[in-house]
Order: sequence, then structure tokens, then C-alpha cells
Amino acid sequence: GFAGGIQTVTIIPGDGIGPEISDAVIKIFDSAQVPIHWEERNVTAIKGPGGKWMIPPEAKESMDKSKIGLKGPLKTPIAAGHPSMNLLLRKTFDLYANVRPCVSIEGYKTPYTDVDLVTIRENTEGEYSGIEHVIVDGVVQSIKLITENASQRIAQFAFEYARNNQRSTVTAVHKANIMRMSDGLFLRKCRDVAENYKDIKFTEMYLDTVCLNMVQDPTSFDVLVMPNLYGDILSDLCAGLIGGLGVTPSGNIGANGVAIFESVHGTAPDIAGKDLANPTALLLSAVMMLRHMGLHDHAKKIEKACYDTIESETVRTKDLGGNAKCSEFTNEICRRVQDQD
Amino acid sequence: GFAGGIQTVTIIPGDGIGPEISDAVIKIFDSAQVPIHWEERNVTAIKGPGGKWMIPPEAKESMDKSKIGLKGPLKTPIAAGHPSMNLLLRKTFDLYANVRPCVSIEGYKTPYTDVDLVTIRENTEGEYSGIEHVIVDGVVQSIKLITENASQRIAQFAFEYARNNQRSTVTAVHKANIMRMSDGLFLRKCRDVAENYKDIKFTEMYLDTVCLNMVQDPTSFDVLVMPNLYGDILSDLCAGLIGGLGVTPSGNIGANGVAIFESVHGTAPDIAGKDLANPTALLLSAVMMLRHMGLHDHAKKIEKACYDTIESETVRTKDLGGNAKCSEFTNEICRRVQDQD
Ligand SMILES: CC(C)[C@H](C(=O)O)[C@@H](O)C(=O)O
Ligand SMILES: CC(C)[C@H](C(=O)O)[C@@H](O)C(=O)O
Repeated sequence: GFAGGIQTVTIIPGDGIGPEISDAVIKIFDSAQVPIHWEERNVTAIKGPGGKWMIPPEAKESMDKSKIGLKGPLKTPIAAGHPSMNLLLRKTFDLYANVRPCVSIEGYKTPYTDVDLVTIRENTEGEYSGIEHVIVDGVVQSIKLITENASQRIAQFAFEYARNNQRSTVTAVHKANIMRMSDGLFLRKCRDVAENYKDIKFTEMYLDTVCLNMVQDPTSFDVLVMPNLYGDILSDLCAGLIGGLGVTPSGNIGANGVAIFESVHGTAPDIAGKDLANPTALLLSAVMMLRHMGLHDHAKKIEKACYDTIESETVRTKDLGGNAKCSEFTNEICRRVQDQD
Repeated sequence: GFAGGIQTVTIIPGDGIGPEISDAVIKIFDSAQVPIHWEERNVTAIKGPGGKWMIPPEAKESMDKSKIGLKGPLKTPIAAGHPSMNLLLRKTFDLYANVRPCVSIEGYKTPYTDVDLVTIRENTEGEYSGIEHVIVDGVVQSIKLITENASQRIAQFAFEYARNNQRSTVTAVHKANIMRMSDGLFLRKCRDVAENYKDIKFTEMYLDTVCLNMVQDPTSFDVLVMPNLYGDILSDLCAGLIGGLGVTPSGNIGANGVAIFESVHGTAPDIAGKDLANPTALLLSAVMMLRHMGLHDHAKKIEKACYDTIESETVRTKDLGGNAKCSEFTNEICRRVQDQD
């Protein structure tokens, strides 16, 4: 919430390299004088009253108040029955839309240039319903659940996103030739919603065709919206096109304005605590967060400093082909933020 | 079947450019003196006695006898309730394994080099069960069906394939972190079968991770085995890496030795009949077929002639960046086949 122009954000540093890259982001935000007050919380699940796994009340309360979270990588404890932390957070805050802008980074070479697309993944249902049965010995079924409400909600989100971000096309990704009823329903809702956004072009494509065309010419895509599993796949595929999870931001948007922005790479325990981590994915996620909060000038300034640092090639972390430490990379970004004043 | 050393193959030219590219393959096979007798059939579905769609009896009988088919692209008629021809053929002949070798073509530039992998897709169940329900208004479920038998059969196929084709690794692709029971069963069967193939390395990977790594470094993959939908996606993705469906062969292998080899591109009605089509995908599928039939010398000779033609760059069809007609491209391959004698 707001307090004298200063907004509170819940920061969840996470595990492994999480604390280091969170510190890097905080430092860069300080250098840009972003009007944010950070409230640090730990979300690792605990067993609640009924034996159900839940995130700790202090974290839940902080998020309920601030509505905005920034989260580093989390390791899921191997305790029996411990849920995936990612899934638990999505569920706890009904974070129904996963948004991943994939934009080529100047100067960081991959097989592709000029990628500039966004995947929008329905985050709450589909193949992730968790409903499975043994029918008879050796025969198992998993249920994919598609609802009108969730389909409508994500379609609406995608078109709003496109409009607010000066995007021209929304493509619904589906396999309604095979799953006629479920993907059919999803697709129908996308078509319905498209009717209300005449300023945005709407197209439909089969998932397999998208994958084929994506690796041949990703520049032909703009905003893509799709059910849960397809989004899981395509968002990672697209991240690969621009350099991987270490440079790809991600945001999970929920009902009532709640949102958690996060780096989707792992905790990298092998390099944790060694000042070697690359904070780019978390920083760019934090930049997405700034835009979500309406702090566009700060977003632009920090984003530019980050991209310029990578492009100049002199101060890069190891995974980006350089030999700078996390702190050196961070300082360079801070310097470039301040140079813009 | 065999007859004096000459084996019969059912050829299904298909629609659009199908007849032209089938003629090209037959001509090239003639130039290589392949001991094959072609029996031409049309498979477009008809309505059978009970009103059920089926492939015409003459086609079914030919395939039942010859056991081997070569098939061009088919258009699915838009008659109400007409089934996808691809699905109907898979079902009719229980073609349980779709095999797609994806190998970079020297001289044909894509963002990747040295790709050399094979996707093996379970072709009969999973998300393609066709079982769907409306639960209540606005809530739909699709059922993904995984059986022990089909999982065992495809896993076995993948390891046999790896062994017979001098491949070193089989990777099972899954989302058993989400679909614990269904993908879990698939994965367990892969693990079980792996026990019997100590000469082949076995690894397991999440589908999203495979997609991410695939576009970053496809050379790290060898043989991949997976449930139906994942195969639909990955096989197209991988085709994209080496130049698309116009240069990617495909084989569908069934029980009792039945197999249909096919190009998986479309019928390209816009260029049909104009001598502009590229027969490469169908030709390389026919080469797969030769290997399946044990005709390794002929396979090698024709494959080399095809690759050499593309590599030399002087005679290429339009889609490959040249301006040769289909007939010129075909003649050049024939010439190179004969030059090898
Ligand atoms: C960790 C796993 C449950 C998760 C998923 O499959 O959604 C991950 O792949 C993701 O995309 O956040
Ligand atoms: C045409 C369609 C039913 C089919 C599928 O989804 O399997 C196609 O994409 C394929 O891969 O053969």
C-alpha cells in the first residue's frame, strides 16, 4: 500500500543465490531512488492447523497488505508431501496469469535477434488440476480442467495487457483439433473477448505450429495466450531464444491487484554466497514490477542501465561470458543509473 | 510381402502436391534400382456399414498384405464428422510409434548446426484419448489416458531403436512433477525397460526443460521418448531446427511390422501441379522406409544423392532458396544416384 508516496513491497529473497541477487536489486533500486519500502519475508511452507501446508502467516499478511511481491528462487524442501512452492504461491494468492516478456538483449548473442514477444499463461487450472485416478491396474487418467471463467479471465488479461503495452496482436495457442471441448472452450472465450478489442488483432494457432514457427522465426510473434501446460512449455522455450532463465523476467498477476514478480531460474547452490550470481532475471522482473506499479520512469532508467551494462561487454557475470562478480556487475548498473541523472 | 526379391509397398500419393512428390520418389527409386513394387491406393475415409468412417477396403487390404506404406500429404475433407486422416490411419493400423529423425542438412543454413536427434512419440493414447465431458455449464474436462502397456511398448521401441541405430542415450520427456500418476506411470515403465538395455544410457527430463535446452543447444540430445502430446510438440519444434517440415522425414511404426512413412508437411494447394514442390521430406521418409525394410545400401545411396544435391546449391527448389523445378531437382538426385555406381 501507499504511505506518503512510498509504496511497500514484500521481498522474498529465497534460497541459494536468492539473497545475493535480491541485495543487488535493492542496491540498484536505491541508486535510482525508487520510492519503495521493502518488507522482507520468508515463504517456505509450514504445516498449518489442519496439517495442510501453507505459507507462514507473516508472509501472507505482508502480501495481503502490500499486494506486491518480488521473489528470488526457492528450493522446495524434500519433506514428504511438501508442495512445490511455486504452485503453493500461485494458489494462495490466486495468481492466475503468468507473464513473460522475451526480448532479445543487444550484444548478448543467441541464434536469434529482434525477439520481442510476451507469453501469457493461464496459471490455475488445465493440466495442473491435480486430479488423477487409477482406473484399473495399469490404466491411469489425469484430468485437464478448463472453465469458462478462468478462460475468460486470462483472455481478458491478455487483451488488456496488449492494449496497455502497445502490442498489436494476441494469438491464442491451442490444440482444439484434439481437445475439442476443453481447448475448444478456451478458444471460444478468447474469440468472445477479442470482439471487445477491435484495436488488437486476434489470431489462433495450434501449439505444434507455434513451436515449429517459433524456432524458425520468433519475430513473427507478439502476445501469446494459452492454457497452463502449453504456457509452461512455451514460456521456457521462448526464454531459451533470448539467452535462458538467467535473463528472462517473469510476473504472476492475481485477482485484486496482487502480483508477484520473480526470477524463474534455480537457486544455483554451487555458486551461492560466492558473489558470482547474475541478478539480471530478478532485476528485469523488478522492472516489470515497477511498470505494474505505474513507476514507468524508474523502470525505464533501470532497464536501460541493465541492458547497457550487458551490451558494453566490459562488466559481465560469468554466465554472460564475462568474469565480473555479482557486486561489480551491480555497481556498474548503479553507476549507469546515476549517469542518467 | 516378398515376391522373388521384389517387395510390395503401398503408395498413397495423397492430395495437392502429393502426386508430384510421389512420382519424384518413384523415379529416384527406379534410378537406384530399388527392388520395390508399388501398389497405389487412395485412403480418403469413406462411411462404412455402421456409419463409421473407415479407410477404403482396397487400401486396407493392400496395407494388410504389404505391411509397408509410403504416404504423401492428405487433406482432411470438411464433411461433418470426418475424422483427421492422420488419426484414422494411426488407429486403423495401430501405428503406435511416431519416429522423426532430425538431422542438420549440410549447406542448408538454419540457426543451428550439427543437430542429430530422434523424437519418438507415443501415438495412440495420452491427451489424444478423445474422452471429454461437460461437468457443469462452463466446466469441461478432457481425459489424458496413460496405460502400462502402451508406455512399456513405446519405451521398448525407443531402446530397440537406439540400439539398432547406434544411438547412445534415450531421454524420457515428462511432467511427472505435475501429472504424478499418469506421467509417473509412463516414466516408471521407461525406467523399467532401461534396466534391460545397459548398453544405452537413460536420462529423464521435464518437458519444459527440454524445450529450453533444445533451442539453446540441440546437439546435447540423442533419442527422446515421450507421451503423445509432448511428441506432437517436440517433433515439430525439432523439425523447425533443421529447416522445417519440408525436409523432415517421419515414420509411423505399428504392431506386427506394419509401418507407414510419410512427409508431414501440408498439401500446398497453391503450388500443386506446377512442378514447384520439394520432394525432400517424402524422399527422406522413403529412405527411412528402406532402412526399416533392411535395404540399407539403397537407403545410403539415395540419401547421399539427396543431401549432396542440396549441399551443392546449384539445383534447389524454391523453398530451399533455389529456382529449380521439382523435376529438375529430382533429375539431379537421379544423376547423383547413378554417378555412385
Ligand atoms: C516447478 C514446476 C511445478 C513449475 C511448473 O510446471 O509450472 C515450473 O516449471 C514453472 O514453470 O514455474
Ligand atoms: C493433424 C493433427 C491431428 C496431428 C496431431 O495433432 O497429432 C498433427 O499435428 C500431427 O502431428 O500429425
